[in-house]
Amino acid sequence: MVKKTTIYDIAENLGLTAATVSRALNNNPKISEKTRKLVQKTALLMNYEQNTLAKALKSGKSYNVGVIVPRIDSNFFASVIRGIEEELYPKGYHVIICQTHDQEEQEIGNINSLLSAQVDGILMSITNAQTKSNIFESISKKNVPLIFFDRKKDIANVSSITIDDFDGAYQATKHLIKQGYKRIAHLSNDRRLEIFKNRFLGYKQAILDSGLEYDESLIIETHSKVLAGRASTKRLLSLENPPDAIFSTSDFSALGAIQEIKSQGLRIPEDISVVGFSNEPFTRFMELSITSVDQSPIEMGRKAALVFLEEVDKSLKTKKAQQIVLQPELIIRKSSLKTNL
Amino acid sequence: MVKKTTIYDIAENLGLTAATVSRALNNNPKISEKTRKLVQKTALLMNYEQNTLAKALKSGKSYNVGVIVPRIDSNFFASVIRGIEEELYPKGYHVIICQTHDQEEQEIGNINSLLSAQVDGILMSITNAQTKSNIFESISKKNVPLIFFDRKKDIANVSSITIDDFDGAYQATKHLIKQGYKRIAHLSNDRRLEIFKNRFLGYKQAILDSGLEYDESLIIETHSKVLAGRASTKRLLSLENPPDAIFSTSDFSALGAIQEIKSQGLRIPEDISVVGFSNEPFTRFMELSITSVDQSPIEMGRKAALVFLEEVDKSLKTKKAQQIVLQPELIIRKSSLKTNL
Repeated sequence: MVKKTTIYDIAENLGLTAATVSRALNNNPKISEKTRKLVQKTALLMNYEQNTLAKALKSGKSYNVGVIVPRIDSNFFASVIRGIEEELYPKGYHVIICQTHDQEEQEIGNINSLLSAQVDGILMSITNAQTKSNIFESISKKNVPLIFFDRKKDIANVSSITIDDFDGAYQATKHLIKQGYKRIAHLSNDRRLEIFKNRFLGYKQAILDSGLEYDESLIIETHSKVLAGRASTKRLLSLENPPDAIFSTSDFSALGAIQEIKSQGLRIPEDISVVGFSNEPFTRFMELSITSVDQSPIEMGRKAALVFLEEVDKSLKTKKAQQIVLQPELIIRKSSLKTNL
Repeated sequence: MVKKTTIYDIAENLGLTAATVSRALNNNPKISEKTRKLVQKTALLMNYEQNTLAKALKSGKSYNVGVIVPRIDSNFFASVIRGIEEELYPKGYHVIICQTHDQEEQEIGNINSLLSAQVDGILMSITNAQTKSNIFESISKKNVPLIFFDRKKDIANVSSITIDDFDGAYQATKHLIKQGYKRIAHLSNDRRLEIFKNRFLGYKQAILDSGLEYDESLIIETHSKVLAGRASTKRLLSLENPPDAIFSTSDFSALGAIQEIKSQGLRIPEDISVVGFSNEPFTRFMELSITSVDQSPIEMGRKAALVFLEEVDKSLKTKKAQQIVLQPELIIRKSSLKTNL
């Protein structure tokens, strides 16, 4: 049988003490980042098998943090994750990511997977699905920090970082009204989720504040997908009294709206104007660039990571949940800007 | 002290036997998917703390699979991951994802994190960085299946799923030559990585096969980023004898090329033509749609998952590594199609 590599072998190899090697392997903050990385790399090269249970018992930490998002292929979520990594990586944490595809079963499965992988905390944006609150409460009860970003639920003791979705939608709708549009449709989404409810309420308030007619037939629940946006826009354009502008709760459905409008030979923004939400990069790259609401995703991720770092060493009793709300920014581009104004 | 939930409590609650609950918690394939999910959900709701060590000892499996990619915010990698999930999720596996941002240190850290989270296998696309082969060998030696997709290294016993990058680049360059372009530049990337080396070789072979002059000053190593593509294109356009077409190894740098060309007042494709690689969705969405090479990412992910499923229950000795090569497809769009031909 091959002799197993021990921490003494690694120590000898590097000219360090066994205690230093042990601390480095356990991500002890007393060890410099350079030494920690050197030791961890050497351990892997020497095929050292750390007893993960012993390690977990000793430090009480895995130095892995779990992040759960509905989907990774949106620039918004990818940017939030980048913000989280930017804060946590220098502190010795690794980020492991799961996606739910907006399925409740996958969300529960991902939570189970991350807990069984013994993550030190879970940072997540919940699915559209109506996962029961007690599932989130059960994580929090295990004293594993749980932090919501973007899509959240109100749960005692759980911190959250969101943007002011009401204000973002209000700004976007007001911008359309100032440009002279009068029949503004809204591609909404499942309003049992706070973010979509708040965007809807911001839209509605802007309409009412401006003395325009609030017409429910102009509001269609639409998934954040290009084809869904196209289908809803087709319905809107076939109305007897069609809209002259569309405010979409998603850039993807806004893109679908643009495709449908163009395919019907209408001009944007002269005949009908389109505004999205999230400031996905393609909104900027397109020839007909799309007006959208920026949600500061990197800052959102950073804040979520900082809240995690504050909470990870505290017990449930001393923890004080924080509700952080960031300000959105309307980015005006060609799809809604009438140049003759 | 609160009484801990046992499998007997869960069994009683659901009217199942304790053995069934235990099997369901351990992802035993004899248990139906429906029952498994019901039991796992109930366990979480009842705040049941499974002894993960006992579980791992019993089944020898965590039913977590690790995926490592350079970045999640590219449609290509996100689609590969979707393909992996589509095959593995119905088999009871959960996929946990790490990104390396093309940093060797993060790649090593991610491998450590996933191994300490006791994943049943690692499916990965390696970084641009020159991580030493023995790190990958050390995973394979632990009898944890390691499967490369897209960016790979030749390591004994390790399977890989790639596309024929040489052929993709050859097709793209030949298409430009057929359109009448004669001075074709190439935005390359680190050619110590096989995929970039092969794309370069495919480009070069197409030039030579067509009797055109092969000019090294037209080849610039360029990161897969919009700004990098812009900078390289600026250099190319300032040459005494500038190119009349650009074949880029990345859609992102191709987009940068287009931005730079337009900013100099040149017309695409009349004055200069651009072809990318990967078929990212934005290449299709843009007004000036971009010709690109499709890499079948979902199929690549599916194949990687199937190879994992074949390997996971085998010992090192009975394993036979597979090298699967998929065929790329050139998608011709406006950025390279001269309508007057």
